[in-house]
Amino acid sequence: MQRDIYENISPLDARYYKSNVKLMDDLSRYLSENSVIKYQAMVEVAMISVMERYGVAPSGATEQMKIAYKKITPEEVYAEEEKTRHNIRALVNVLQRYVDDEVAPFIHLSATSEDVTGTSQSLRIRDAMYRVVIPKCLEFVEQLMEIVERESATVQIGRTHGQHAVPITVGYVFAGYLDRFGGRLKKIIDAVNNLKGKMSGAVGAYNASSLIFDDPRKFEEDVLAELDLKPAEFSSQIVEPEYMLDLIHAVVSAFGILAQISDDIRHLQRTEIGELGESFEKDQVGSSTMPHKRNPWNFEHVKSMWKEFMPRIITRYLDQISEHQRDLTNSASGRFVVEIITAFTISLERLIKQFKKLKIDHENLKANLGKTKWMYLAEPLYILLASKGEKKAHEIVKQATLKAEKEGKDLFSVVESDERFSDVVSTDQWKLLKSKPESYTGLAHDRALAILYHWKNETDLIKNLCNNYKEVCNEW
Amino acid sequence: MQRDIYENISPLDARYYKSNVKLMDDLSRYLSENSVIKYQAMVEVAMISVMERYGVAPSGATEQMKIAYKKITPEEVYAEEEKTRHNIRALVNVLQRYVDDEVAPFIHLSATSEDVTGTSQSLRIRDAMYRVVIPKCLEFVEQLMEIVERESATVQIGRTHGQHAVPITVGYVFAGYLDRFGGRLKKIIDAVNNLKGKMSGAVGAYNASSLIFDDPRKFEEDVLAELDLKPAEFSSQIVEPEYMLDLIHAVVSAFGILAQISDDIRHLQRTEIGELGESFEKDQVGSSTMPHKRNPWNFEHVKSMWKEFMPRIITRYLDQISEHQRDLTNSASGRFVVEIITAFTISLERLIKQFKKLKIDHENLKANLGKTKWMYLAEPLYILLASKGEKKAHEIVKQATLKAEKEGKDLFSVVESDERFSDVVSTDQWKLLKSKPESYTGLAHDRALAILYHWKNETDLIKNLCNNYKEVCNEW
Amino acid sequence: MQRDIYENISPLDARYYKSNVKLMDDLSRYLSENSVIKYQAMVEVAMISVMERYGVAPSGATEQMKIAYKKITPEEVYAEEEKTRHNIRALVNVLQRYVDDEVAPFIHLSATSEDVTGTSQSLRIRDAMYRVVIPKCLEFVEQLMEIVERESATVQIGRTHGQHAVPITVGYVFAGYLDRFGGRLKKIIDAVNNLKGKMSGAVGAYNASSLIFDDPRKFEEDVLAELDLKPAEFSSQIVEPEYMLDLIHAVVSAFGILAQISDDIRHLQRTEIGELGESFEKDQVGSSTMPHKRNPWNFEHVKSMWKEFMPRIITRYLDQISEHQRDLTNSASGRFVVEIITAFTISLERLIKQFKKLKIDHENLKANLGKTKWMYLAEPLYILLASKGEKKAHEIVKQATLKAEKEGKDLFSVVESDERFSDVVSTDQWKLLKSKPESYTGLAHDRALAILYHWKNETDLIKNLCNNYKEVCNEW
Amino acid sequence: MQRDIYENISPLDARYYKSNVKLMDDLSRYLSENSVIKYQAMVEVAMISVMERYGVAPSGATEQMKIAYKKITPEEVYAEEEKTRHNIRALVNVLQRYVDDEVAPFIHLSATSEDVTGTSQSLRIRDAMYRVVIPKCLEFVEQLMEIVERESATVQIGRTHGQHAVPITVGYVFAGYLDRFGGRLKKIIDAVNNLKGKMSGAVGAYNASSLIFDDPRKFEEDVLAELDLKPAEFSSQIVEPEYMLDLIHAVVSAFGILAQISDDIRHLQRTEIGELGESFEKDQVGSSTMPHKRNPWNFEHVKSMWKEFMPRIITRYLDQISEHQRDLTNSASGRFVVEIITAFTISLERLIKQFKKLKIDHENLKANLGKTKWMYLAEPLYILLASKGEKKAHEIVKQATLKAEKEGKDLFSVVESDERFSDVVSTDQWKLLKSKPESYTGLAHDRALAILYHWKNETDLIKNLCNNYKEVCNEW
Repeated sequence: MQRDIYENISPLDARYYKSNVKLMDDLSRYLSENSVIKYQAMVEVAMISVMERYGVAPSGATEQMKIAYKKITPEEVYAEEEKTRHNIRALVNVLQRYVDDEVAPFIHLSATSEDVTGTSQSLRIRDAMYRVVIPKCLEFVEQLMEIVERESATVQIGRTHGQHAVPITVGYVFAGYLDRFGGRLKKIIDAVNNLKGKMSGAVGAYNASSLIFDDPRKFEEDVLAELDLKPAEFSSQIVEPEYMLDLIHAVVSAFGILAQISDDIRHLQRTEIGELGESFEKDQVGSSTMPHKRNPWNFEHVKSMWKEFMPRIITRYLDQISEHQRDLTNSASGRFVVEIITAFTISLERLIKQFKKLKIDHENLKANLGKTKWMYLAEPLYILLASKGEKKAHEIVKQATLKAEKEGKDLFSVVESDERFSDVVSTDQWKLLKSKPESYTGLAHDRALAILYHWKNETDLIKNLCNNYKEVCNEW
Repeated sequence: MQRDIYENISPLDARYYKSNVKLMDDLSRYLSENSVIKYQAMVEVAMISVMERYGVAPSGATEQMKIAYKKITPEEVYAEEEKTRHNIRALVNVLQRYVDDEVAPFIHLSATSEDVTGTSQSLRIRDAMYRVVIPKCLEFVEQLMEIVERESATVQIGRTHGQHAVPITVGYVFAGYLDRFGGRLKKIIDAVNNLKGKMSGAVGAYNASSLIFDDPRKFEEDVLAELDLKPAEFSSQIVEPEYMLDLIHAVVSAFGILAQISDDIRHLQRTEIGELGESFEKDQVGSSTMPHKRNPWNFEHVKSMWKEFMPRIITRYLDQISEHQRDLTNSASGRFVVEIITAFTISLERLIKQFKKLKIDHENLKANLGKTKWMYLAEPLYILLASKGEKKAHEIVKQATLKAEKEGKDLFSVVESDERFSDVVSTDQWKLLKSKPESYTGLAHDRALAILYHWKNETDLIKNLCNNYKEVCNEW
Repeated sequence: MQRDIYENISPLDARYYKSNVKLMDDLSRYLSENSVIKYQAMVEVAMISVMERYGVAPSGATEQMKIAYKKITPEEVYAEEEKTRHNIRALVNVLQRYVDDEVAPFIHLSATSEDVTGTSQSLRIRDAMYRVVIPKCLEFVEQLMEIVERESATVQIGRTHGQHAVPITVGYVFAGYLDRFGGRLKKIIDAVNNLKGKMSGAVGAYNASSLIFDDPRKFEEDVLAELDLKPAEFSSQIVEPEYMLDLIHAVVSAFGILAQISDDIRHLQRTEIGELGESFEKDQVGSSTMPHKRNPWNFEHVKSMWKEFMPRIITRYLDQISEHQRDLTNSASGRFVVEIITAFTISLERLIKQFKKLKIDHENLKANLGKTKWMYLAEPLYILLASKGEKKAHEIVKQATLKAEKEGKDLFSVVESDERFSDVVSTDQWKLLKSKPESYTGLAHDRALAILYHWKNETDLIKNLCNNYKEVCNEW
Repeated sequence: MQRDIYENISPLDARYYKSNVKLMDDLSRYLSENSVIKYQAMVEVAMISVMERYGVAPSGATEQMKIAYKKITPEEVYAEEEKTRHNIRALVNVLQRYVDDEVAPFIHLSATSEDVTGTSQSLRIRDAMYRVVIPKCLEFVEQLMEIVERESATVQIGRTHGQHAVPITVGYVFAGYLDRFGGRLKKIIDAVNNLKGKMSGAVGAYNASSLIFDDPRKFEEDVLAELDLKPAEFSSQIVEPEYMLDLIHAVVSAFGILAQISDDIRHLQRTEIGELGESFEKDQVGSSTMPHKRNPWNFEHVKSMWKEFMPRIITRYLDQISEHQRDLTNSASGRFVVEIITAFTISLERLIKQFKKLKIDHENLKANLGKTKWMYLAEPLYILLASKGEKKAHEIVKQATLKAEKEGKDLFSVVESDERFSDVVSTDQWKLLKSKPESYTGLAHDRALAILYHWKNETDLIKNLCNNYKEVCNEW
């Protein structure tokens, strides 16, 4: 059923589809309604395949099912559902049309709908993650690594409470993004690998399958093995919801780091700061009325998407509860899980695009560093004074900074004219700070590189995982 | 740009579009990306129209703009946006193509993008509410009124904590739904009527318009009057976000009542209760493996949709904050507001469909009422005993119920054999309760009708409001 | 039961109690567990009082109850609850101890626990709002008005996307805070005035009271009238939850405005901006290691409190659902409502304290205004050029700004050397802007004052409301 | 500072303190404001201890600090904070009072406040988890295991959509709770073990410590090793927030399982079902007006607490963002983390108490099983028919169930009179089902035991972990 995309209601399927056609098409392979039905059919194929192997279903049944799998369309299944009012029964009815009468009765036999629904949901989300989302995360991680390396020694004033604190390096800041995002990527992968399937029937106790198979737990394991999945240790009608919840927690918390990065950079692009920011394109317009504007609108966009999608995790926590062996109140809501994954991925893509041409203004970085006339050296001054045994060092230095501020002097002159600092002033450390105040960056440079190397190794492992990953349906 | 709906990611644009084609098309007129652009153009027309009236724009400009408004397509605007990277500038550029060169410079003149974006958002959401959502609410209210009237005397055991309490009537329960939902509908209408527009420029201070108009606040009022809107008392670049927040609060809290109704009925459809429930259609399938199942899946669906959409109100509270005169982090998220309205409306539609054929099983209602052997008469027994001046009445009656329970007797026989109750047993009230224990329903019947009449009047007023409502664009 | 406050778990009862002893004690009168029990007893008194008037309860019963009301302690009630496992039955049992045996049976007669719990909750929250929270809001509104007036002409660069836009005045910005917060205050008051009580028994149908009173609805109205409350149009065991939900929505959305204000100012206190900010006290320490730091920690605190308490509104939406005539899953959660009100009030107090000594740095305001060499005049330049009929005005001006930026010139010189601007350059408007670029503030000053006058009137009305408000228990 | 607990605002510190004195006191050791200060001091001791070992601080300094640690009180620190307006500087000033002047300057030297705050937060929460929360979880797990074992063969009708599905056993249902809760417990432990500390200074780059120590990263590791903690791979001023977020995710998702259990059981206690439920105590009152009521109020309480605390996880996701090297907007909110842990623990305790006397009504279980006249055998009937090669088996059986329903017959008689079932009727499987319809429980019994054994092993490991856990301060 064709429709103009601009008639869609969800911004994901209209505006954000349009601005990400390629990526959205990639995701759609796994996350659209079309994929829902394809993957459900895939589970039905896997069932027949094991039944044939067991000698329960007739020989050749699997071949017929694979052909049926290719033939069915969502249109057909939806048309059938209008009669059955039941989506999986509709699917089974449609599949039956494409196989011989001897094979037909075995389709779905002993399964409950959720065996198919839940298992296929795990499967297609895992495929989406390994084929689209994780590679996109890796691309971002590599960008971050590149920036860490390139800017490991680029000094920047550190900011706490929005106030100048003491210096770091740009590379060190990005090492932080790298380590945090990398950590989330690992959480995502763990959660994806932990997604489970089920083939345990209507209440999870293998009632129906016990009638047909000697070892119904083994039948479950065998069917799921066809799909490279494992059964949950326990299931009611549904797989324990915590597996999917953990994945969405991992995705949403990774999204939070994208929001942090975006927030940081859009503030660093403030007119008064101008250290980092978006590049401005030739024909780009910043404001429809203020022709001079250059806005960090892409970073703002990512923050905004996070604001929209982060709260949706509440639904996942609500969906932990399904009365007794299951109520259906997690069904409609469960379908929307794909929106969170989609929004995360296109936001990531947005950042990646910006990072390809991220503007780092080294002049402004330098200018801002000196903006307080090196007042930040109050910290080393206090440390050096205290390490000489001065108990009131903090108070003394605070007074010195107030004096400098009041008299408009720099800290050096105040310090040199105050004999309480005489022991400090003579140290090599203070001398170095005086001559190179930008050198007060501690281990920023070294730690940035250490973190970089750590993630170089980690990403190699993750790339391997991705390369070795196989989609089940590709085999057919 | 045509696309198979099954390729869409959002369930709203695929599965739930398919099951609500007519209603979704109605909503799409106001809530799709297409409508975004149409309504933005509408605001541009309104601006020109006032400028022409003021003698600022050339005579005939408005006519040209109305033609341009009809010609533009989202495709064109999106294509232009790829160059400008700015949606409203793109819109203006495209509109300029369809008008004379003397008119072109006045398009959007003195406005900031958000004057158009924010105003058009208020407008199209108001239209959607008055044209689709509120009438749908009214339809539901009328269903509720019909049920209240019909079942005002149908006795049902009241339940608190899931335990039998004392009796009410089905009509009284629905009077509660009616009063609560009706109250929310009024909140919705108040909030819709309170949506505001703006035409106050980039930072809300009428800087640009002050250059052209003697009374820029009047210009704002006049432009908005063309659209039947009023300006906010204050705006920065954006309209105060609380107007839209109040609307979404009203919608989400109305949604909560749909969830309550759904929850109540799906529990009343439990196998052991069977008082109310969904009708089962001829070809309908309850379970793919359990042919005997009759599930309350529509009520479960509504609850599930509420679980998905209710938490999204958090985004609206987050969007209250927009730094200084505005940051853009409410832009993408602001676009998703339409999803909440859509989900609420299709859930309402789902309930309406079920209520057309709501199953009320009078036999089970009666059977359940007597299930505890009238133990619920413990309440009137305690009241009557206490009103005779017995301080320990509550304790005495509790002991009687425990005795009845233990000995498997009904309460009457326990009471009659215990002389502490002799004063009570002889009252007319107790005699009536003994002969007609189902009569212990207090004012359930009368209050149900009183509430019904209250809402009959209210809905007449609301219907008038809807009938008198005019869509601006229909006039053109 | 005495306990060291530092042993408490909730920061509200330890750290934030300590930093707001007076205010917290004021709130505690209405919002503590102590107040829970006192107000519940108050409702019991009101019941007896009407019963005595009706001639149902013995003459003098009310007097006895008022004495009992003063005597009971939470300790006693809690001790009794250990036996009954039911809080209201415990309360009734304790009250019975302090009255004559003839009066005792009438205590609570015909009421269900929730008649007392729900009614008293409305009552004590209304008292808290009128006695503490609304006056505190008014104090804040008056501060805002004072700043609006004082700074109505103080020019400040407007900021959108964190970028310099065009100028406004500080007073105008605060007029925005005033209008938004004032609007929320009115919402709060409406919601408070709309809180309801009930006296309709176990399932809301007046079953028990029908046995005793001819007109049980009137009995409900009369009891509630004693407490200056009105009954809900409908109640099940509980009052419709939407009344309280609306109040918490109003409070949380008012809290959002405090967060916006705090965010704005803490950013304006950034080292590079320094326009507004906190005053620094004599002995104050900014950082334990960086003696030079002056942090906007109070504004950060308010934002942080909002982050903690805003999401809790989700619980209120969840609490809309109470199965059938009531389940108890809104009971514990309902008790925590008071925390949101408390957190809002102490955050407001924090802002009030800061606003008493708010630092406004007029020099930095001026310096920042000129920071871009008046690049913001690109807007009026574009407006003036377009109003001369130049279709490509926006593009031409954008090019001019890029040229100015690239060549490090100011906009004036670029404009003067480009003949496309010759018509504009000769206008009085451009001449004025050139000589007084800070004058480009549109209606900022006038609108600030208009909004101020609007709220002067509104606050007079609100003050009257507060002055005329009576607490029921004060009468006794 | 002593205060009547009933004056507290938070229900946690009043009502729920009172009902859990012992447990709350245990938690208070780690989660109160008192503990905040004690643990912060503990970190200061650890720093000095390493400095003394390094020869930086004077010999004997650690001994002095341990004494100081014991002497300081929250009162003192709070009094000092009124001057400094800075909590950690206040702590340091107070500690300095209790040590010699030679030691004083080394206290806190090179640390930023957050080194102490963040590290101590990890520490005290880890202690709380290992000392109180995890053991409480284990207690619950053991209860669940006991019930699984005892009820592994107790047949119960399975319920999906609130409708009778097919049978399971009570033990199998509890095996599901066990597996899900056990899984969460492991997540909790992983997250606790992953909590990190830091000693990297104001912006995380070891600026200050680089002045004093040759290898400041090693200094960090050594100080944290004193506390059995590890540093984060990266820190800004704060530890990466994801470690704490993961813990709260684990706790909140474990809480969700408590809510599921509570929901299940309170529904099973419904008057019409009566299978599982709370025991009623001798003097207990169910309702203040309905003496016959026996309510599942404890299970309702747990659900209600979950509704209150689950949404607060949103704050944790919000707290992922801290601008640049840190803003303070995670400070107040971060303090409230302890409330979630507390609420989870007392809710768990509530369940444990109920489970000690959980009522399982075997008669009602049996009665309900037969309630539909074994209609649930429609499933095996369909399976057996289909496995004979009947393509339309599902439809045929559905018709049979409708016929049985309509004619009020049981399924056996309908089946026997319909020759399409003749092949099925003769099977051993059908004969067994007819003679023992309660035997249709699949692997419920076996899987219950398998899951039980799995968790017996797991809990042994967890118990070991707990037994080997050492609190740092206990050593002193």
